[in-house]
Amino acid sequence: MPDNERNIVWHAKSVSREKREAFNRHRGCVLWYTGLSGSGKSTVANKVEELLSQRNAQTYLLDGDNIRFGLNSDLGFDEKDRRENIRRIGEVAKLFADSGTIVSVAFISPYRADRQKARSIVEEAGLDFIEIYVKCDLAVCEGRDPKGLYKKARSGEIKNFTGLDAPYEEPLAPELALESGKYDPETLSKQVLEFLNRKHILL
Amino acid sequence: MPDNERNIVWHAKSVSREKREAFNRHRGCVLWYTGLSGSGKSTVANKVEELLSQRNAQTYLLDGDNIRFGLNSDLGFDEKDRRENIRRIGEVAKLFADSGTIVSVAFISPYRADRQKARSIVEEAGLDFIEIYVKCDLAVCEGRDPKGLYKKARSGEIKNFTGLDAPYEEPLAPELALESGKYDPETLSKQVLEFLNRKHILL
Repeated sequence: MPDNERNIVWHAKSVSREKREAFNRHRGCVLWYTGLSGSGKSTVANKVEELLSQRNAQTYLLDGDNIRFGLNSDLGFDEKDRRENIRRIGEVAKLFADSGTIVSVAFISPYRADRQKARSIVEEAGLDFIEIYVKCDLAVCEGRDPKGLYKKARSGEIKNFTGLDAPYEEPLAPELALESGKYDPETLSKQVLEFLNRKHILL
Repeated sequence: MPDNERNIVWHAKSVSREKREAFNRHRGCVLWYTGLSGSGKSTVANKVEELLSQRNAQTYLLDGDNIRFGLNSDLGFDEKDRRENIRRIGEVAKLFADSGTIVSVAFISPYRADRQKARSIVEEAGLDFIEIYVKCDLAVCEGRDPKGLYKKARSGEIKNFTGLDAPYEEPLAPELALESGKYDPETLSKQVLEFLNRKHILL
Protein backbone atom coordinates (compact mmCIF):
# COMPACT_ATOMS: atom_id res chain seq x y z
CA MET A 1 0.00 0.00 0.00
CA PRO A 2 1.47 3.34 -1.00
CA ASP A 3 1.90 5.92 1.67
CA ASN A 4 -0.82 8.09 0.24
CA GLU A 5 -3.47 5.64 1.48
CA ARG A 6 -2.15 6.21 4.97
CA ASN A 7 -3.57 9.69 4.83
CA ILE A 8 -7.15 8.67 5.07
CA VAL A 9 -9.76 11.39 4.81
CA TRP A 10 -13.33 10.61 5.80
CA HIS A 11 -16.00 11.01 3.13
CA ALA A 12 -19.58 11.68 4.08
CA LYS A 13 -21.65 8.83 2.71
CA SER A 14 -24.35 9.86 0.27
CA VAL A 15 -26.71 7.07 1.25
CA SER A 16 -27.39 7.14 4.94
CA ARG A 17 -28.02 4.19 7.21
CA GLU A 18 -31.33 5.75 8.27
CA LYS A 19 -32.58 5.98 4.71
CA ARG A 20 -31.76 2.34 4.02
CA GLU A 21 -33.45 1.24 7.22
CA ALA A 22 -36.63 3.16 6.49
CA PHE A 23 -36.90 1.45 3.12
CA ASN A 24 -36.05 -2.01 4.48
CA ARG A 25 -38.47 -1.58 7.41
CA HIS A 26 -35.83 -2.83 9.81
CA ARG A 27 -32.60 -1.66 11.37
CA GLY A 28 -29.30 -3.30 10.64
CA CYS A 29 -28.00 -5.38 13.53
CA VAL A 30 -25.83 -8.35 14.42
CA LEU A 31 -27.41 -11.58 15.68
CA TRP A 32 -24.51 -13.47 17.26
CA TYR A 33 -25.43 -17.12 17.85
CA THR A 34 -23.12 -18.92 20.28
CA GLY A 35 -23.37 -22.44 21.67
CA LEU A 36 -21.94 -25.94 21.60
CA SER A 37 -21.46 -27.91 18.42
CA GLY A 38 -24.83 -29.54 17.70
CA SER A 39 -26.78 -27.01 19.76
CA GLY A 40 -28.62 -25.86 16.64
CA LYS A 41 -27.04 -22.44 15.98
CA SER A 42 -27.07 -22.71 12.18
CA THR A 43 -30.45 -24.43 12.11
CA VAL A 44 -32.11 -21.68 14.14
CA ALA A 45 -30.23 -18.93 12.26
CA ASN A 46 -31.47 -20.33 8.96
CA LYS A 47 -35.07 -20.54 10.24
CA VAL A 48 -34.84 -16.94 11.40
CA GLU A 49 -33.59 -15.93 7.95
CA GLU A 50 -36.56 -17.71 6.39
CA LEU A 51 -39.01 -15.84 8.61
CA LEU A 52 -37.29 -12.53 7.92
CA SER A 53 -37.21 -13.21 4.22
CA GLN A 54 -41.01 -13.58 4.24
CA ARG A 55 -41.14 -9.90 5.08
CA ASN A 56 -38.42 -9.15 2.54
CA ALA A 57 -35.86 -8.18 5.14
CA GLN A 58 -32.24 -7.86 4.05
CA THR A 59 -30.39 -10.66 5.80
CA TYR A 60 -27.11 -12.49 5.53
CA LEU A 61 -25.49 -15.37 7.37
CA LEU A 62 -21.81 -15.52 8.25
CA ASP A 63 -20.64 -18.96 9.26
CA GLY A 64 -17.77 -21.36 8.89
CA ASP A 65 -18.70 -22.02 5.30
CA ASN A 66 -18.25 -18.55 3.91
CA ILE A 67 -15.66 -17.21 6.37
CA ARG A 68 -13.21 -19.99 7.13
CA PHE A 69 -12.76 -20.88 3.44
CA GLY A 70 -12.47 -17.25 2.37
CA LEU A 71 -11.62 -14.20 4.45
CA ASN A 72 -10.05 -16.22 7.25
CA SER A 73 -8.46 -18.96 5.17
CA ASP A 74 -5.04 -17.61 6.18
CA LEU A 75 -5.69 -18.25 9.87
CA GLY A 76 -4.71 -21.33 11.82
CA PHE A 77 -6.13 -22.62 15.07
CA ASP A 78 -3.83 -21.37 17.82
CA GLU A 79 -5.01 -18.84 20.37
CA LYS A 80 -3.76 -15.80 18.47
CA ASP A 81 -5.47 -16.87 15.27
CA ARG A 82 -8.63 -17.86 17.10
CA ARG A 83 -8.89 -14.30 18.43
CA GLU A 84 -8.13 -12.80 15.04
CA ASN A 85 -10.80 -15.03 13.50
CA ILE A 86 -13.46 -13.64 15.82
CA ARG A 87 -12.16 -10.06 15.49
CA ARG A 88 -12.49 -10.16 11.70
CA ILE A 89 -15.94 -11.74 11.89
CA GLY A 90 -16.94 -8.92 14.25
CA GLU A 91 -15.59 -6.32 11.82
CA VAL A 92 -17.37 -7.84 8.83
CA ALA A 93 -20.60 -8.22 10.81
CA LYS A 94 -20.31 -4.52 11.69
CA LEU A 95 -20.04 -3.57 8.01
CA PHE A 96 -23.12 -5.64 7.14
CA ALA A 97 -25.13 -4.13 9.99
CA ASP A 98 -23.98 -0.67 8.89
CA SER A 99 -25.25 -1.50 5.39
CA GLY A 100 -28.70 -2.06 6.93
CA THR A 101 -28.56 -5.85 6.92
CA ILE A 102 -29.69 -8.12 9.76
CA VAL A 103 -26.55 -10.22 9.76
CA SER A 104 -26.44 -13.53 11.58
CA VAL A 105 -23.19 -14.98 12.86
CA ALA A 106 -23.26 -18.67 13.78
CA PHE A 107 -19.99 -19.71 15.42
CA ILE A 108 -19.38 -21.74 18.56
CA SER A 109 -17.29 -18.74 19.81
CA PRO A 110 -16.67 -20.46 23.16
CA TYR A 111 -14.73 -17.67 24.90
CA ARG A 112 -16.34 -14.71 26.64
CA ALA A 113 -13.44 -12.40 25.89
CA ASP A 114 -13.69 -13.08 22.15
CA ARG A 115 -17.43 -12.47 22.09
CA GLN A 116 -16.91 -9.30 24.12
CA LYS A 117 -14.39 -8.10 21.53
CA ALA A 118 -16.90 -8.66 18.73
CA ARG A 119 -19.57 -6.87 20.75
CA SER A 120 -17.31 -3.86 21.31
CA ILE A 121 -16.53 -3.55 17.60
CA VAL A 122 -20.22 -3.52 16.71
CA GLU A 123 -21.46 -1.35 19.58
CA GLU A 124 -18.71 1.23 19.12
CA ALA A 125 -20.13 1.78 15.64
CA GLY A 126 -23.51 2.56 17.22
CA LEU A 127 -25.04 -0.73 16.09
CA ASP A 128 -26.98 -3.41 17.96
CA PHE A 129 -25.17 -6.59 18.98
CA ILE A 130 -27.63 -9.27 20.03
CA GLU A 131 -25.95 -12.24 21.66
CA ILE A 132 -28.14 -15.32 21.32
CA TYR A 133 -27.11 -18.20 23.50
CA VAL A 134 -28.30 -21.44 21.93
CA LYS A 135 -28.40 -23.41 25.12
CA CYS A 136 -28.39 -27.16 25.08
CA ASP A 137 -26.98 -29.82 27.41
CA LEU A 138 -23.79 -31.42 26.21
CA ALA A 139 -25.40 -34.87 26.35
CA VAL A 140 -28.18 -33.74 24.01
CA CYS A 141 -25.71 -32.13 21.58
CA GLU A 142 -23.59 -35.26 21.63
CA GLY A 143 -26.67 -37.41 21.09
CA ARG A 144 -27.55 -35.35 17.97
CA ASP A 145 -23.95 -35.19 16.71
CA PRO A 146 -25.13 -34.03 13.24
CA LYS A 147 -21.61 -33.79 11.86
CA GLY A 148 -20.19 -36.85 13.64
CA LEU A 149 -17.70 -34.59 15.39
CA TYR A 150 -18.34 -35.73 18.96
CA LYS A 151 -17.65 -39.29 17.86
CA LYS A 152 -14.35 -38.20 16.36
CA ALA A 153 -13.51 -36.23 19.50
CA ARG A 154 -14.29 -39.17 21.79
CA SER A 155 -12.09 -41.43 19.68
CA GLY A 156 -9.26 -38.91 19.95
CA GLU A 157 -9.33 -38.02 16.25
CA ILE A 158 -10.15 -34.38 17.14
CA LYS A 159 -8.40 -32.65 20.02
CA ASN A 160 -9.46 -29.54 21.95
CA PHE A 161 -13.13 -30.12 21.29
CA THR A 162 -15.41 -27.53 22.90
CA GLY A 163 -17.41 -29.07 25.73
CA LEU A 164 -15.15 -32.11 26.01
CA ASP A 165 -11.47 -31.21 26.40
CA ALA A 166 -11.84 -27.46 25.71
CA PRO A 167 -14.07 -25.08 27.66
CA TYR A 168 -17.30 -23.44 26.59
CA GLU A 169 -17.78 -20.26 28.57
CA GLU A 170 -21.52 -19.68 28.89
CA PRO A 171 -22.74 -16.15 28.23
CA LEU A 172 -23.43 -14.39 31.52
CA ALA A 173 -25.93 -11.88 30.15
CA PRO A 174 -26.94 -12.74 26.59
CA GLU A 175 -29.69 -10.64 25.04
CA LEU A 176 -31.55 -13.89 24.38
CA ALA A 177 -31.18 -17.50 25.53
CA LEU A 178 -32.85 -20.23 23.49
CA GLU A 179 -33.54 -23.58 25.15
CA SER A 180 -32.73 -25.73 22.16
CA GLY A 181 -32.85 -28.96 24.15
CA LYS A 182 -36.51 -28.29 24.98
CA TYR A 183 -38.03 -26.56 21.96
CA ASP A 184 -37.91 -27.16 18.22
CA PRO A 185 -36.21 -24.75 15.78
CA GLU A 186 -39.57 -23.30 14.63
CA THR A 187 -40.47 -22.28 18.17
CA LEU A 188 -37.01 -20.86 18.83
CA SER A 189 -36.93 -18.89 15.60
CA LYS A 190 -40.27 -17.29 16.54
CA GLN A 191 -38.74 -16.28 19.87
CA VAL A 192 -35.99 -14.48 17.96
CA LEU A 193 -38.55 -12.67 15.79
CA GLU A 194 -40.54 -11.65 18.86
CA PHE A 195 -37.37 -10.25 20.37
CA LEU A 196 -36.58 -8.27 17.18
CA ASN A 197 -40.09 -6.85 17.22
CA ARG A 198 -39.96 -5.95 20.90
CA LYS A 199 -36.60 -4.21 20.50
CA HIS A 200 -37.80 -2.29 17.43
CA ILE A 201 -35.21 -3.85 15.17
CA LEU A 202 -38.18 -4.64 12.93
CA LEU A 203 -39.91 -1.37 12.09
CA MET B 1 -10.43 -21.82 17.71
CA PRO B 2 -11.21 -25.33 18.90
CA ASP B 3 -10.46 -28.19 16.57
CA ASN B 4 -14.11 -28.91 16.02
CA GLU B 5 -14.43 -25.78 13.90
CA ARG B 6 -11.81 -27.26 11.61
CA ASN B 7 -14.35 -29.84 10.58
CA ILE B 8 -16.50 -27.52 8.58
CA VAL B 9 -19.67 -28.92 7.10
CA TRP B 10 -21.51 -26.90 4.48
CA HIS B 11 -25.07 -25.88 5.25
CA ALA B 12 -27.52 -25.17 2.47
CA LYS B 13 -28.62 -21.58 2.86
CA SER B 14 -32.34 -21.14 3.32
CA VAL B 15 -32.49 -17.79 1.60
CA SER B 16 -31.06 -18.03 -1.87
CA ARG B 17 -29.16 -15.38 -3.74
CA GLU B 18 -31.69 -15.61 -6.57
CA LYS B 19 -34.62 -14.87 -4.29
CA ARG B 20 -32.91 -11.82 -2.84
CA GLU B 21 -32.03 -10.53 -6.29
CA ALA B 22 -35.58 -10.93 -7.59
CA PHE B 23 -36.87 -8.85 -4.69
CA ASN B 24 -34.13 -6.22 -4.96
CA ARG B 25 -34.55 -6.00 -8.76
CA HIS B 26 -30.81 -6.20 -9.23
CA ARG B 27 -28.05 -8.73 -8.98
CA GLY B 28 -25.30 -8.48 -6.41
CA CYS B 29 -21.96 -7.46 -7.89
CA VAL B 30 -18.68 -5.72 -7.13
CA LEU B 31 -17.90 -2.31 -8.63
CA TRP B 32 -14.16 -1.94 -8.17
CA TYR B 33 -13.06 1.68 -8.72
CA THR B 34 -9.33 2.10 -9.33
CA GLY B 35 -7.37 5.23 -10.20
CA LEU B 36 -4.94 7.83 -8.95
CA SER B 37 -5.49 9.83 -5.79
CA GLY B 38 -7.72 12.73 -6.78
CA SER B 39 -9.10 10.97 -9.84
CA GLY B 40 -12.59 11.02 -8.35
CA LYS B 41 -13.15 7.38 -7.38
CA SER B 42 -15.06 8.10 -4.17
CA THR B 43 -16.94 11.01 -5.70
CA VAL B 44 -18.20 8.92 -8.61
CA ALA B 45 -18.88 5.90 -6.38
CA ASN B 46 -21.02 8.07 -4.10
CA LYS B 47 -22.93 9.55 -7.06
CA VAL B 48 -23.60 6.04 -8.35
CA GLU B 49 -24.89 5.04 -4.91
CA GLU B 50 -27.23 8.03 -4.97
CA LEU B 51 -28.63 7.05 -8.36
CA LEU B 52 -29.03 3.43 -7.26
CA SER B 53 -30.67 4.47 -4.03
CA GLN B 54 -33.35 6.33 -6.02
CA ARG B 55 -34.47 2.92 -7.23
CA ASN B 56 -34.07 1.45 -3.74
CA ALA B 57 -31.18 -0.76 -4.68
CA GLN B 58 -29.18 -2.36 -1.88
CA THR B 59 -25.75 -0.76 -2.03
CA TYR B 60 -22.70 -0.38 0.16
CA LEU B 61 -19.37 1.37 -0.18
CA LEU B 62 -16.09 -0.07 1.07
CA ASP B 63 -13.30 2.47 1.26
CA GLY B 64 -10.41 3.55 3.39
CA ASP B 65 -12.77 4.94 5.99
CA ASN B 66 -14.54 1.76 6.95
CA ILE B 67 -11.83 -0.77 6.10
CA ARG B 68 -8.49 0.71 7.12
CA PHE B 69 -9.76 1.76 10.56
CA GLY B 70 -11.54 -1.52 11.15
CA LEU B 71 -11.02 -4.88 9.51
CA ASN B 72 -7.56 -4.01 8.22
CA SER B 73 -6.38 -1.90 11.14
CA ASP B 74 -3.82 -4.62 11.95
CA LEU B 75 -2.09 -4.21 8.58
CA GLY B 76 0.90 -2.06 7.84
CA PHE B 77 2.08 -0.70 4.52
CA ASP B 78 4.76 -3.09 3.29
CA GLU B 79 4.24 -5.23 0.21
CA LYS B 80 2.94 -8.26 2.10
CA ASP B 81 0.38 -6.22 4.01
CA ARG B 82 -0.62 -4.27 0.92
CA ARG B 83 -1.51 -7.56 -0.78
CA GLU B 84 -3.35 -8.82 2.29
CA ASN B 85 -5.27 -5.53 2.43
CA ILE B 86 -6.59 -6.03 -1.08
CA ARG B 87 -7.22 -9.76 -0.56
CA ARG B 88 -9.43 -9.08 2.46
CA ILE B 89 -11.28 -6.29 0.66
CA GLY B 90 -11.89 -8.74 -2.19
CA GLU B 91 -13.21 -11.35 0.26
CA VAL B 92 -15.53 -8.89 2.00
CA ALA B 93 -16.75 -7.50 -1.34
CA LYS B 94 -17.53 -11.09 -2.38
CA LEU B 95 -19.66 -11.61 0.75
CA PHE B 96 -21.60 -8.39 0.09
CA ALA B 97 -22.18 -9.30 -3.55
CA ASP B 98 -23.31 -12.77 -2.43
CA SER B 99 -25.77 -11.09 -0.07
CA GLY B 100 -27.31 -9.38 -3.12
CA THR B 101 -25.71 -5.99 -2.58
CA ILE B 102 -24.14 -3.82 -5.29
CA VAL B 103 -20.95 -3.17 -3.36
CA SER B 104 -18.57 -0.43 -4.45
CA VAL B 105 -14.89 -0.55 -3.62
CA ALA B 106 -12.98 2.71 -3.96
CA PHE B 107 -9.26 2.16 -3.47
CA ILE B 108 -6.32 3.36 -5.55
CA SER B 109 -5.30 -0.33 -5.85
CA PRO B 110 -2.37 0.56 -8.11
CA TYR B 111 -1.11 -2.95 -8.89
CA ARG B 112 -2.57 -5.21 -11.56
CA ALA B 113 -1.72 -8.38 -9.67
CA ASP B 114 -3.62 -7.20 -6.58
CA ARG B 115 -6.70 -6.26 -8.60
CA GLN B 116 -6.50 -9.59 -10.41
CA LYS B 117 -6.46 -11.38 -7.05
CA ALA B 118 -9.60 -9.53 -5.96
CA ARG B 119 -11.25 -10.34 -9.29
CA SER B 120 -10.45 -14.04 -8.92
CA ILE B 121 -11.96 -14.19 -5.43
CA VAL B 122 -15.20 -12.63 -6.65
CA GLU B 123 -15.47 -14.46 -9.98
CA GLU B 124 -14.70 -17.86 -8.45
CA ALA B 125 -17.82 -17.35 -6.33
CA GLY B 126 -19.81 -16.90 -9.55
CA LEU B 127 -20.25 -13.18 -9.02
CA ASP B 128 -19.63 -10.19 -11.29
CA PHE B 129 -16.47 -8.14 -10.81
CA ILE B 130 -16.69 -4.85 -12.66
CA GLU B 131 -13.38 -3.01 -12.79
CA ILE B 132 -13.97 0.70 -13.29
CA TYR B 133 -10.90 2.65 -14.23
CA VAL B 134 -11.32 6.26 -13.15
CA LYS B 135 -8.92 7.71 -15.65
CA CYS B 136 -7.43 11.12 -15.14
CA ASP B 137 -4.08 12.69 -16.02
CA LEU B 138 -1.69 13.00 -13.14
CA ALA B 139 -1.46 16.76 -13.69
CA VAL B 140 -5.22 17.13 -13.34
CA CYS B 141 -5.30 14.98 -10.18
CA GLU B 142 -2.44 16.98 -8.72
CA GLY B 143 -4.18 20.22 -9.63
CA ARG B 144 -7.29 19.08 -7.74
CA ASP B 145 -5.35 17.63 -4.78
CA PRO B 146 -8.52 17.48 -2.65
CA LYS B 147 -6.73 16.05 0.36
CA GLY B 148 -3.49 18.02 0.00
CA LEU B 149 -1.62 14.77 -0.44
CA TYR B 150 0.27 15.64 -3.64
CA LYS B 151 1.61 18.72 -1.92
CA LYS B 152 2.86 16.60 0.96
CA ALA B 153 4.37 14.08 -1.46
CA ARG B 154 6.15 16.80 -3.44
CA SER B 155 7.58 18.22 -0.25
CA GLY B 156 8.83 14.77 0.74
CA GLU B 157 6.47 14.43 3.70
CA ILE B 158 4.88 11.36 2.07
CA LYS B 159 7.04 8.73 0.38
CA ASN B 160 6.01 6.10 -2.18
CA PHE B 161 3.16 8.16 -3.51
CA THR B 162 1.27 6.53 -6.38
CA GLY B 163 1.88 8.40 -9.63
CA LEU B 164 4.95 10.22 -8.29
CA ASP B 165 7.52 7.87 -6.78
CA ALA B 166 5.40 4.70 -6.84
CA PRO B 167 3.82 3.18 -9.95
CA TYR B 168 0.19 3.11 -10.98
CA GLU B 169 -0.40 0.18 -13.29
CA GLU B 170 -3.26 1.10 -15.61
CA PRO B 171 -5.95 -1.54 -16.11
CA LEU B 172 -5.41 -3.26 -19.46
CA ALA B 173 -9.00 -4.39 -19.94
CA PRO B 174 -11.31 -2.75 -17.40
CA GLU B 175 -15.02 -3.38 -17.81
CA LEU B 176 -15.45 0.39 -17.85
CA ALA B 177 -13.14 3.40 -18.18
CA LEU B 178 -14.38 6.77 -17.02
CA GLU B 179 -12.69 9.91 -18.36
CA SER B 180 -12.80 11.90 -15.18
CA GLY B 181 -10.55 14.64 -16.52
CA LYS B 182 -13.12 15.40 -19.23
CA TYR B 183 -16.54 14.79 -17.72
CA ASP B 184 -18.20 15.74 -14.46
CA PRO B 185 -19.17 13.16 -11.80
CA GLU B 186 -22.88 13.31 -12.79
CA THR B 187 -22.09 12.33 -16.37
CA LEU B 188 -19.71 9.58 -15.26
CA SER B 189 -22.15 8.13 -12.75
CA LYS B 190 -24.78 7.90 -15.48
CA GLN B 191 -22.28 5.96 -17.59
CA VAL B 192 -21.95 3.47 -14.75
CA LEU B 193 -25.74 3.11 -14.51
CA GLU B 194 -26.00 2.59 -18.26
CA PHE B 195 -23.39 -0.12 -18.01
CA LEU B 196 -25.27 -1.84 -15.18
CA ASN B 197 -28.45 -1.76 -17.25
CA ARG B 198 -26.75 -3.06 -20.35
CA LYS B 199 -25.16 -5.94 -18.45
CA HIS B 200 -28.45 -6.83 -16.74
CA ILE B 201 -27.10 -6.18 -13.28
CA LEU B 202 -30.18 -4.00 -12.87
CA LEU B 203 -33.23 -6.18 -13.49
